[in-house]
Amino acid sequence: MALSIEQLNAATPEQVAALLDGTYEHSPWIAQRAAAARPFRSLAHLKHALVQAVSKAKDEEQLGLIRAHPELAGKAMVSKTLTAESTHEQGKAGLTDCTPEEFAKIQQLNADYNAKFGFPFILAVRGPRGTGLSKREIIDTFERRLHHPADFERGEALRNIHRIAEIRLDDKFGVTPALGNDVWDWQEQLSQHTDPGYAEKGQLTVTYLTDAHRACAQQIAGRMREAGFDSVQIDAVGNVVGRYEGATPGAKTLLTGSHYDTVRNGGKYDGRLGIFVPIACVRELKRQNRRLPYAFEVVGFAEEEGQRYKATFLGSGALTGHFDPKWLDQKDADGITMREARAAAGLKEEDIPKLRRDPSKYLGFVEVHIEQGPVLNELDLPLGIVTSINGGVRYVGEVIGMASHAGTTPMTRRRDAAAAVAELILFAEQRAAKDGDSVATVGMLEVPSGSINVVPGSCKFSLDMRAPNNPQRDALAADVIAELKAICERRGVRYTLEESMKASAAPSAPAWQQRWEQAVDTLGVPLYRMPSGAGHDAMKLHEVMPQAMLFVRGINSGISHNPLESSTNNDMQLAVEAFQLLLDNLANEKAH
Amino acid sequence: MALSIEQLNAATPEQVAALLDGTYEHSPWIAQRAAAARPFRSLAHLKHALVQAVSKAKDEEQLGLIRAHPELAGKAMVSKTLTAESTHEQGKAGLTDCTPEEFAKIQQLNADYNAKFGFPFILAVRGPRGTGLSKREIIDTFERRLHHPADFERGEALRNIHRIAEIRLDDKFGVTPALGNDVWDWQEQLSQHTDPGYAEKGQLTVTYLTDAHRACAQQIAGRMREAGFDSVQIDAVGNVVGRYEGATPGAKTLLTGSHYDTVRNGGKYDGRLGIFVPIACVRELKRQNRRLPYAFEVVGFAEEEGQRYKATFLGSGALTGHFDPKWLDQKDADGITMREARAAAGLKEEDIPKLRRDPSKYLGFVEVHIEQGPVLNELDLPLGIVTSINGGVRYVGEVIGMASHAGTTPMTRRRDAAAAVAELILFAEQRAAKDGDSVATVGMLEVPSGSINVVPGSCKFSLDMRAPNNPQRDALAADVIAELKAICERRGVRYTLEESMKASAAPSAPAWQQRWEQAVDTLGVPLYRMPSGAGHDAMKLHEVMPQAMLFVRGINSGISHNPLESSTNNDMQLAVEAFQLLLDNLANEKAH
Repeated sequence: MALSIEQLNAATPEQVAALLDGTYEHSPWIAQRAAAARPFRSLAHLKHALVQAVSKAKDEEQLGLIRAHPELAGKAMVSKTLTAESTHEQGKAGLTDCTPEEFAKIQQLNADYNAKFGFPFILAVRGPRGTGLSKREIIDTFERRLHHPADFERGEALRNIHRIAEIRLDDKFGVTPALGNDVWDWQEQLSQHTDPGYAEKGQLTVTYLTDAHRACAQQIAGRMREAGFDSVQIDAVGNVVGRYEGATPGAKTLLTGSHYDTVRNGGKYDGRLGIFVPIACVRELKRQNRRLPYAFEVVGFAEEEGQRYKATFLGSGALTGHFDPKWLDQKDADGITMREARAAAGLKEEDIPKLRRDPSKYLGFVEVHIEQGPVLNELDLPLGIVTSINGGVRYVGEVIGMASHAGTTPMTRRRDAAAAVAELILFAEQRAAKDGDSVATVGMLEVPSGSINVVPGSCKFSLDMRAPNNPQRDALAADVIAELKAICERRGVRYTLEESMKASAAPSAPAWQQRWEQAVDTLGVPLYRMPSGAGHDAMKLHEVMPQAMLFVRGINSGISHNPLESSTNNDMQLAVEAFQLLLDNLANEKAH
Repeated sequence: MALSIEQLNAATPEQVAALLDGTYEHSPWIAQRAAAARPFRSLAHLKHALVQAVSKAKDEEQLGLIRAHPELAGKAMVSKTLTAESTHEQGKAGLTDCTPEEFAKIQQLNADYNAKFGFPFILAVRGPRGTGLSKREIIDTFERRLHHPADFERGEALRNIHRIAEIRLDDKFGVTPALGNDVWDWQEQLSQHTDPGYAEKGQLTVTYLTDAHRACAQQIAGRMREAGFDSVQIDAVGNVVGRYEGATPGAKTLLTGSHYDTVRNGGKYDGRLGIFVPIACVRELKRQNRRLPYAFEVVGFAEEEGQRYKATFLGSGALTGHFDPKWLDQKDADGITMREARAAAGLKEEDIPKLRRDPSKYLGFVEVHIEQGPVLNELDLPLGIVTSINGGVRYVGEVIGMASHAGTTPMTRRRDAAAAVAELILFAEQRAAKDGDSVATVGMLEVPSGSINVVPGSCKFSLDMRAPNNPQRDALAADVIAELKAICERRGVRYTLEESMKASAAPSAPAWQQRWEQAVDTLGVPLYRMPSGAGHDAMKLHEVMPQAMLFVRGINSGISHNPLESSTNNDMQLAVEAFQLLLDNLANEKAH
């Protein structure tokens, strides 16, 4: 018999611990303390209460929890003293069936890991899809995590423990995140298409109008047709546009979507999640033969990342009427102009202006996106409410000093370009931190043709600064640039600085942010409001209609534009459910 | 009638000013004040006294001196109101004969320069060889100097004024630096040989055993034969070895020399000056049919810079018995092993051990070298006494943090590898400065594949630290490495650090340093003792015999391993004269 939330809510704390026995390895105190948060509003709420019990626990209690876990394919497995749950999980991952070499490798990793961190390596071997990781994936992750800083790895251990608990709870409750699994699988299948040269390396790269890109468009269009959209087409910039009409003709339209292009060697979920989540919603509506009192338009944007050509937001930009015909002359690395690439794809220039949407016919724009940052993961929250897409400004610069002999130039007679940039880096870091929610990054840094024995005469750098609103961004940039000037004057060097990008902040429309909050709250997931540090298609749509975004936790904290950026079937399930609630609530608003 | 030092010494200060009228443009106060330093011991002493009068003058007086100079090819030239000296000099440079385009270009540069610095551009158009610069050279220098920091350029203006005065004084005294001119010309002629691919770019690059390198050896050998050496040969590592035997057979030998290979796109004087200065001395001895009471051996070392192969000091290393046969397997960028390159040059491996010198047969080693640093130039001193060749240690390292999205990773959650290296750079700078005579340099710096929107997950750097003695070097390195460790711990990042070079300090042998000091003092040039920040062949010879070096001022301050590194015919003349005095004094010592 599956467990139910009602059962837990009616039990004593001791009974709660008994009912949840086996969720957290040898640690009944977690369930007991979580019981204080009752009544649990949902399984998601229960999971969060358990997580909170751990994060509020003492340091030694957390360490005890981690140490209560067996080593992977360790002595406990060999001596058959694992808990039933661990035996099941390690068996599923094939760890009970290692070759002697694999076993020896894992033993060595266990020993190294324990020596470095003082606790066993913990990995949710049933993985983000809920299905087993391969032995190869497990060993790779083990080797990667061995290099982490200690405090970070302790957090990873706890997060994996919570993920293990989540899967065990789903089993106990007899729940399967079926919609999340479908969305997961769709993304997996879409990632089969990758640009030439990347498949061999096992890397995902889909840039504007390549064969892989066009195959992606076809696959997304196919998904939309299967899901039951009324019309599906690939438009004149390569966007895949599906419409699910409303109950009445001429009703206004809710717009959603995200991009299906990727950065080079990117992740499978960046952008794509925001296409497949609403497709899952439409499929469920169609299954129920339900029509909403408004039309629903889902767009897979063809381009957002600016990888093949310099221009970005080509897909969403076409909808706002901001496609600049000059972009057609841009060339890719092989010298192919955008015009030529478009012609090869059969896209007609004269059709682009027709893509511009009439804002009066739209209710607004919403977008689901993986967070691309570490915040939700570190706070153990599956969803986040975006308050604003940060405004940003970027510069590329160079400090020019005087190259001189590293041995013969006294410290007092140097005009060291790199030392000046070092001061800039540290100032920018500290100045952005002062704001709390601003960021500043020197991501590119190079002493061109630097030699070990030459005082740097030049140092090139980039500067990226972002803040939730434009005045805060501008004050940050002004301070950093003033300091650069002061540093250079003090050091007798000079600098060049060229603004390469400037984007306005895009605060969420309060009514739409409120709709996301209502949906997330209904799920029993705590509300967490946060700015988006990255730019998104919603930033473009913001120019013509109200918008608001929902973030989904990314795992492998803080890694983005990287194949390791991931999410889980459970979090994707919650994203679909939140979107369904938003659609329902909006339907109710319209009905009244 | 040429002026004489005796005349000046006998005159009143006003007469001195009158006798030196026209040396410094419209500024009789300089000669008047310099007169206080009388009796002048030599022309070099007079020049120095004039320089001192300017450097002790008030800021406004210095500025007044600079502003007393006409613009190059400026209005004064057009209206024919230049001083006689300026007319002569500007005319010699062809400036009175500009095309309208050249004239317009120079006017624009004059205007820009004056607007930036507030004084006219001043250049000794008769140049470092005392002969005229071309219009092209003048315009190039003008454009380059327009980019200098203001304080530096003010120093350059004064230095050029002193150089102009020096040439004018030589004219007044009817003196020609004939030996300096010869040494200058020999270096000029040697620089005609350059490695393939560099001639087209007008660059000087001579690396071990290339065709250009072997042509250089032949040319140096030819110079030695012309000068009257008794024996000249190219040895088994490519050193050019000339011997001028002593008055009696079996007398001990004084060894000198420097290297004739260059860095890529190097200067004409680095190393080569220390070969040609003693060749000039031998030529003068031979002209006088004079033999010294000791033999004199001059070596043009084949390799010091480590450009074609990783091994360095191949030439001097062979003399100390430190040629490592393993080096023969090293490959150059084209995959040619040193063994193959040597075979092509007809050099026999089995002959290398025979090159080892028996220290008991040698008096010691002296070396003349261009300073390769800014110190003498900034102090307006032509020669410097080397007290020690600094010991050094080099590392290449990497800080490994975590790459993350620049927009979405809050400042508090970053593990920014570049920011950690920035802290290291500033610590190393400040820690070396604290010693006074230590130096520390991060010359190579790179965020590999850095992106404008990614927090650096890795930052590679080099670290070069030097000090006049080993304990000081080791304390510096220990402090810097301890700080790197602390920075990384504080920031939760890790680092790798590999020592790539470690060299002991080589203090000058007191008796030999004393001999250089005596020679320089006899010239009337103030003594200035300084460590050598760069490594030199003397460092190798130090391992087996006493050594001491003499530095010659480099112009274009602080630039080294660079085509702009230069010297003047006057300074080269002083170097030859100092070497002659050292030889004479040593002969006197032996005679008594």
